[in-house]
Amino acid sequence: MTTETERLSDIFADAFPFWNNLTDNEQRDMLRTSQHIKINRGMNIHDGNECTGVILVRSGSLRIYMLSDEGKDITLCRLFEGDICILSASCAFSNITFDVFVDSEEESDCIIVGGCAFAALSEKNEEVKIFALETALGFFSEVMWVMQQILFMSLDRRLAIFLLDEIAKTGSDTVKLTHEQIAKYMGSAREVVSRMIKYFVGEGLVTSSRGGITVIDKPRLRKLAG
Amino acid sequence: MTTETERLSDIFADAFPFWNNLTDNEQRDMLRTSQHIKINRGMNIHDGNECTGVILVRSGSLRIYMLSDEGKDITLCRLFEGDICILSASCAFSNITFDVFVDSEEESDCIIVGGCAFAALSEKNEEVKIFALETALGFFSEVMWVMQQILFMSLDRRLAIFLLDEIAKTGSDTVKLTHEQIAKYMGSAREVVSRMIKYFVGEGLVTSSRGGITVIDKPRLRKLAG
Repeated sequence: MTTETERLSDIFADAFPFWNNLTDNEQRDMLRTSQHIKINRGMNIHDGNECTGVILVRSGSLRIYMLSDEGKDITLCRLFEGDICILSASCAFSNITFDVFVDSEEESDCIIVGGCAFAALSEKNEEVKIFALETALGFFSEVMWVMQQILFMSLDRRLAIFLLDEIAKTGSDTVKLTHEQIAKYMGSAREVVSRMIKYFVGEGLVTSSRGGITVIDKPRLRKLAG
Repeated sequence: MTTETERLSDIFADAFPFWNNLTDNEQRDMLRTSQHIKINRGMNIHDGNECTGVILVRSGSLRIYMLSDEGKDITLCRLFEGDICILSASCAFSNITFDVFVDSEEESDCIIVGGCAFAALSEKNEEVKIFALETALGFFSEVMWVMQQILFMSLDRRLAIFLLDEIAKTGSDTVKLTHEQIAKYMGSAREVVSRMIKYFVGEGLVTSSRGGITVIDKPRLRKLAG
């Protein structure tokens, strides 16, 4: 093995619980179809129902989103160092008819395991298949939480309104309240508010620190508040 | 085997592709923990994160929905004869944190395979585990379609408005247009409109026949139209 291949092999051993149980041939196939790529900020890396492959984030961040016919999008989740995007290996999932898109949000360093090779491996190897299915299921379970908050509670809208009201009242862009306090004001639970603030941070609407929540994109927050 | 057990065994052979590959012991465990039940209209059959078990619909219909803290609900899908609800066997899925609820919509006849027994089986038997994961994934993929339509297009709202406008114009409760024509008027695709009409039919808002779409619950359709 070359040094580069050895390094990749170590990375896969960390990322994929099934790696050490693969045969030499299976490992070789996965290594051969994998490529290390650098993606510029704002670049698309996976486009709907293409079978791009399994994306392993080494550094930077990716955004997974769904897209409407009119080009509107909704962020489903974000991936950071060590995270895996499995839905971009669409050919490994015969019964998912739902397309996701993946963009790079900053210069990102990724390894892509070829989709066809991964799908073929998961057809032959049950451990790999179970890993792929469980990872996809974990993703959908997470996404349903976002859907639930938006659909039921309009929690995104309510939080936006609350933050805008606060900064209008105090004249500062920073809301000096804990998540617990915000949750109480909004009649919600701390966990729910914390999770939505994390979502806002990811969306670049606010930053969050010990000192409080700072609004950094007022126009978009206003738009969200309707 | 008793006649009842034989009958159940035949039903399982039809419903579960893995059935004939199970060992005698595995089959016996599944049969032993299964029960045939009749559920009255409107009864709850699965409540959030309980591990009720795998529900097999023999007749009637079930509704799977999600519930907010305030008791609002959104229908995720409906199950009819031959359909399987797998998410109600929550203990078989360690990485799903999303709770669903299941009610009977009319007198229904179901077989419930005990959740703990099923989870134990799927831990030991990879074919069963893959079946469970793939079935759950198919469910989420379907549900994401509903979410997408509601979030992006407000297609539910737009269709409600369109139907109410039409019946107000014609003075009849039946809209005598094909799905194709409705899609054209709404600037959408026929497949999308057909799927949403099917969803409306399931919700008891309209009925659909060759003659057109008949509105049967005007107050609720008005509420949906906002």
